Amino acid sequence: MNTQFETLLSEVNRKISDLEFESSAKNLYDPISYTLDLGGKRIRPVLTLMSNLMFGGTNEQAISAALAIEIFHNFTLLHDDVMDHAEIRRGKPTVHKKWNENSAILSGDAMLIVAYQHLSKTNPDKLPLVLQVFSQTALEVCEGQQFDMEFETRSDVTASEYLEMIRLKTAVLLGCALKTGAIIGGADENQQEAIYKFGELIGLAFQLKDDLLDVYGDVSKFGKNIGGDIVSNKKTYLLIQALHHANAHQKEALNTWIKSVDFDRDVKIKAVTEIYNQIGVKQIAETLMTEYYNEALNYLKKLGLETEKTAPLLNLAEKLMYREF
Amino acid sequence: MNTQFETLLSEVNRKISDLEFESSAKNLYDPISYTLDLGGKRIRPVLTLMSNLMFGGTNEQAISAALAIEIFHNFTLLHDDVMDHAEIRRGKPTVHKKWNENSAILSGDAMLIVAYQHLSKTNPDKLPLVLQVFSQTALEVCEGQQFDMEFETRSDVTASEYLEMIRLKTAVLLGCALKTGAIIGGADENQQEAIYKFGELIGLAFQLKDDLLDVYGDVSKFGKNIGGDIVSNKKTYLLIQALHHANAHQKEALNTWIKSVDFDRDVKIKAVTEIYNQIGVKQIAETLMTEYYNEALNYLKKLGLETEKTAPLLNLAEKLMYREF
Repeated sequence: MNTQFETLLSEVNRKISDLEFESSAKNLYDPISYTLDLGGKRIRPVLTLMSNLMFGGTNEQAISAALAIEIFHNFTLLHDDVMDHAEIRRGKPTVHKKWNENSAILSGDAMLIVAYQHLSKTNPDKLPLVLQVFSQTALEVCEGQQFDMEFETRSDVTASEYLEMIRLKTAVLLGCALKTGAIIGGADENQQEAIYKFGELIGLAFQLKDDLLDVYGDVSKFGKNIGGDIVSNKKTYLLIQALHHANAHQKEALNTWIKSVDFDRDVKIKAVTEIYNQIGVKQIAETLMTEYYNEALNYLKKLGLETEKTAPLLNLAEKLMYREF
Repeated sequence: MNTQFETLLSEVNRKISDLEFESSAKNLYDPISYTLDLGGKRIRPVLTLMSNLMFGGTNEQAISAALAIEIFHNFTLLHDDVMDHAEIRRGKPTVHKKWNENSAILSGDAMLIVAYQHLSKTNPDKLPLVLQVFSQTALEVCEGQQFDMEFETRSDVTASEYLEMIRLKTAVLLGCALKTGAIIGGADENQQEAIYKFGELIGLAFQLKDDLLDVYGDVSKFGKNIGGDIVSNKKTYLLIQALHHANAHQKEALNTWIKSVDFDRDVKIKAVTEIYNQIGVKQIAETLMTEYYNEALNYLKKLGLETEKTAPLLNLAEKLMYREF
């Protein structure tokens, strides 16, 4: 028998593959279909549907909003890839490589509009609030991307700046996905806020998990991508904390690796990981991650729902929290 | 005493200058304020307010939607300038020149979201329809830009393809601006459709007017920009019709000018204008423009409103139609 997660995931995937764009402007819409067909975990739309069901809604009421959030998420990936000059997304060429940069900009714009088209199908009773939450979140995601870009050229990013950036860039959209489902499902205001906070906090925990997996993931499962953040000097929570807590000797070694241009990939990963281990950044990150996660669970309890109602969401959060890749 | 147009224009300009973005992501929002502060004729939001008043609405009910449409329009200019590598917009550096390309992409995205935020303040009764019209129009504008980009590398663009492109890229937004005001003002469905068609048709007429002014405008009023389309080989209605109706000799001369890299600006303008005159493309364009305009006026009559109700809109259309710059 399928779990609720699996059932909702198939529903989302079926709806996404059913999306069609009837227009003679083929070159505008093909990159949208391509982007959506690249796949992904589809966590956000599933969260919307789960939250909606949890508060007594039906799938039909929430599916358009769920799709809107997934389309929005994929739009951000499309434009982020242009801004980051990324060549590969989920093993395939990015839109601006497969088509060109102008196509990627314009099709991304259209994709954001398509997201709003789906969101607008929400029951008129709930529509103004759903739109308000979505637009505010969408702007916050842009703010997160803005900070992320600014951090690239800064060497003094603090841990709290980093956490605020990932809150905006990734966590708020999980909160929005859940809150949207809650609004549509008929949750009261306190419940809407509590499920939003739950989403935001698991979002923060998941991002720290991502940062940790890049360095400490199981090579056999995470594959050759292990150490990618180290190789590219990505300012993760681990690197920021390492630089913050390093002694003079460790700081010099880290900065030498950051500045080095010609290096053996594996040697750099091993050396930087060794410094991380000396400083104990794994523990620092895991402690914060666990704090976020536990705080999230407290918000879930605050909903005042029976355990079996919140069980699917809790299971999904656990699965993502204890994943090894 | 101010005309209705002047009163509404000040209202729009005041509301636009009152827009503020409270966020620490200064570099995300500054380009939005900059773009909106560049000015422009503000035709679209004024059309929304005029249409709304014409059907019995109040300014307060329609102002957010009017702002949304103006913000959307300016968003399209911002992203179009990136795609066209334009350096100047309304006499000032474009956003991607003043900041950088990534800023222009991301701030444009945020601007589109801000447009939806304003649109979402529309009365919940009218909101679903207003959103539907806006999103469909917004996608059509993207389709128009897509075709415009594709036409740049094609030498076989037909007049009907060109007209469809300008319909999508510019005319539908005028229709949308008017229809949105009509919906909010309480117009019935037939009136909504008629005012939309009026807007679309005057939009087509105005674009043909633009094409004509570039070649046949009053130099003393249109200034040094006269002939800009000819210099850049822009595929306007005039050039497309000229190539279509040219005899072998004229076609060869036109193509020689199009291909020439090293030329005196004034000599090229004079030579191409001379060929246009031989072929009579001015008359061809003016005939079609007048047809569109007269058809538009028929739709205005179909509204079944007293003459004094439609007078402000008619005056504005006439002013734009018979402008010399």
